[in-house]
Amino acid sequence: MEQSLSSSFTIGFLGAGQLARMSALQAFRFGLQVAVFSDRKEDEPTQFLTPFSYSGSYSDVDSMLEFADKCDVITLENEFIDSGVLKELELRSGTPVYPSPESFALIEDKLIEKQTFEKAGIPVTPYRKITAVSDLISFGKEHGWPCLIKSSKGGYDGYGNKTVRSADSAEEAFRQLGGDQGHTLIAEAYVRFTHELAVQVARNQTGHVVYPCCETVQKNHICVAVKSPAPVTSAQQERARELALKATGAIDGTGLFAFEFFLTANGDILLNESAPRPHNSGHYTIEGCVTSQFENHVRAVCGMALGSSELIRPAAVMINLLGTHHRASRIENSGKAVMEPDGHLHSYGKLISKKGRKMAHYTLLGDEVEKTYSRALQLTEEIAI
Amino acid sequence: MEQSLSSSFTIGFLGAGQLARMSALQAFRFGLQVAVFSDRKEDEPTQFLTPFSYSGSYSDVDSMLEFADKCDVITLENEFIDSGVLKELELRSGTPVYPSPESFALIEDKLIEKQTFEKAGIPVTPYRKITAVSDLISFGKEHGWPCLIKSSKGGYDGYGNKTVRSADSAEEAFRQLGGDQGHTLIAEAYVRFTHELAVQVARNQTGHVVYPCCETVQKNHICVAVKSPAPVTSAQQERARELALKATGAIDGTGLFAFEFFLTANGDILLNESAPRPHNSGHYTIEGCVTSQFENHVRAVCGMALGSSELIRPAAVMINLLGTHHRASRIENSGKAVMEPDGHLHSYGKLISKKGRKMAHYTLLGDEVEKTYSRALQLTEEIAI
Repeated sequence: MEQSLSSSFTIGFLGAGQLARMSALQAFRFGLQVAVFSDRKEDEPTQFLTPFSYSGSYSDVDSMLEFADKCDVITLENEFIDSGVLKELELRSGTPVYPSPESFALIEDKLIEKQTFEKAGIPVTPYRKITAVSDLISFGKEHGWPCLIKSSKGGYDGYGNKTVRSADSAEEAFRQLGGDQGHTLIAEAYVRFTHELAVQVARNQTGHVVYPCCETVQKNHICVAVKSPAPVTSAQQERARELALKATGAIDGTGLFAFEFFLTANGDILLNESAPRPHNSGHYTIEGCVTSQFENHVRAVCGMALGSSELIRPAAVMINLLGTHHRASRIENSGKAVMEPDGHLHSYGKLISKKGRKMAHYTLLGDEVEKTYSRALQLTEEIAI
Repeated sequence: MEQSLSSSFTIGFLGAGQLARMSALQAFRFGLQVAVFSDRKEDEPTQFLTPFSYSGSYSDVDSMLEFADKCDVITLENEFIDSGVLKELELRSGTPVYPSPESFALIEDKLIEKQTFEKAGIPVTPYRKITAVSDLISFGKEHGWPCLIKSSKGGYDGYGNKTVRSADSAEEAFRQLGGDQGHTLIAEAYVRFTHELAVQVARNQTGHVVYPCCETVQKNHICVAVKSPAPVTSAQQERARELALKATGAIDGTGLFAFEFFLTANGDILLNESAPRPHNSGHYTIEGCVTSQFENHVRAVCGMALGSSELIRPAAVMINLLGTHHRASRIENSGKAVMEPDGHLHSYGKLISKKGRKMAHYTLLGDEVEKTYSRALQLTEEIAI
């Protein structure tokens, strides 16, 4: 605790997007210094809020060493760096990386991730490793069409995934995802779910906290809204939270982790995906909970005691504000939203808007989740970015 | 509104201390860019959170022009820059300065400040311009000893002020404050007060909001704690809020203003001091109010609609955490404080602790102000910085 509250203590973020930015804002509150490393030269959200910006390649440890030497601890905001690279960075710089490369190695590859959680007794979506088109066809026959085929590494917001509608399109999908070039692929059963749920967990040597179970509303594989608590039974909420905590334990995680689940029509809860970092599903926690996912991310990786994850109001809803235009970024028609006492607008400072790009979000607190959701949609419907 | 929510919009702070830092953190939330200008070369709190740091002299417009050209709007975090310099900076750079140099000119000098507010019908502490020792002696005779003598410019946390206990010590005090070198001085009556009150006001062309009336607890002329709402009658609270709004109007203020009042033994409320910027008395608003003084500071100077200033809980208390050692800054024994769900620790990132230096603060929310104050003292009593 003491070390982490020294004002010369520097937390380094690998990745400079909005997740690092919102974590950095919390680090500043504790008086810490922030450094950032990105593989892009262009201005990114977190690069605007520190004098300590580094760039290079995520696959080249040499290019990261100067950054690592500046930092007292390093953390991630994405899954784009190989755990082997992280391990080498940690060894060569002597700067600890959290979540640890060992934890990350258990989930960076979708195939290994499924095996890790399955071994821990956590129900996962039915899956199979696919090394030939015939594997995919037999998986589809067994679990029904359509099914999903995914790259085991590097998928993100719908990229690296394909829906396979029948045996006829199996070969094309296999080739599109590079199966014929030796890329590791997995097939996943197409789960009929009633809700997509998410839970964040913060954990370090001082203990752990589990956030409320929320619902993510997806459109074209992109999260457009989050409702917390999820409008499901409290037994279902508790089940998802138990599984999330168990999953964090299964990888001996230090940091902030997010888990996405399917609630199936017959009431089963299946783990779908995990992320070793703050997650879009937890943005609502900034105003919605006593301690946000970003604050607990910083606390967890700096070795500080964790803060309460409880909701401060009965309901919190987050609306993702996606780019509506391709232009220099500006937010128009936000007057209604920002004048609402229970509403909170967050913009990520991206200089360029693109249609569908995650530019900002809006959180509204309230007393009942569905009413709060309707009102949040109303308050944000005219916003143009 | 639209202009101010562009991600290339840059708000510039003259001054790089904790007030600019906490305002900057709010600007980032809106996706804005932050630039900072300081007259110090050493690392200051706000310099750690932007790549756009400038330094030079507060009295030399030339040294400020590069900074001003980077900014879309400029604001202040202290009163150390002459309004004439601000006006010249605005004219030469074309970048607007808020609060305007015209508003600032009405309060930068304590003598003019008193006259401004008196003319607006706001009761102020009895005062007189002192140009000779004999003025001070006759003022003391009229209003009683002790009285105060103050430099009309540049006073801060007890600097530039002297208590004059009798006619015998008048000459020494007059000389110590430079009266014999032509410095403008004023005498102020020593007001017997039961409470020191403070109110913040945010105001721009879209409207105004007035914060709750809080009490500041002072020790050796330094604010050590703030209780909100102030433990005085609601009529007294309302009277202070009315006077604060009237005072903001009297200088046609755009920005965030703080006013300090004395509540006298016979129930009068006298304006003591004003500040054209966020103020230590309003730090509790970060978690205590719907919209903090820092957020409304940013909103006000960027031309955005202002947010509600209402308390979100019945009581909020802020404890200033002053340096306890002279050493590299670190916060020890804060475990109790940071694990308290209603408590919020803010550290300013200063690299060096000094005894009595404002290093951090702690805000505790609760249901009753005196109980919350006792608890906040308990939670922070072991903290060493």
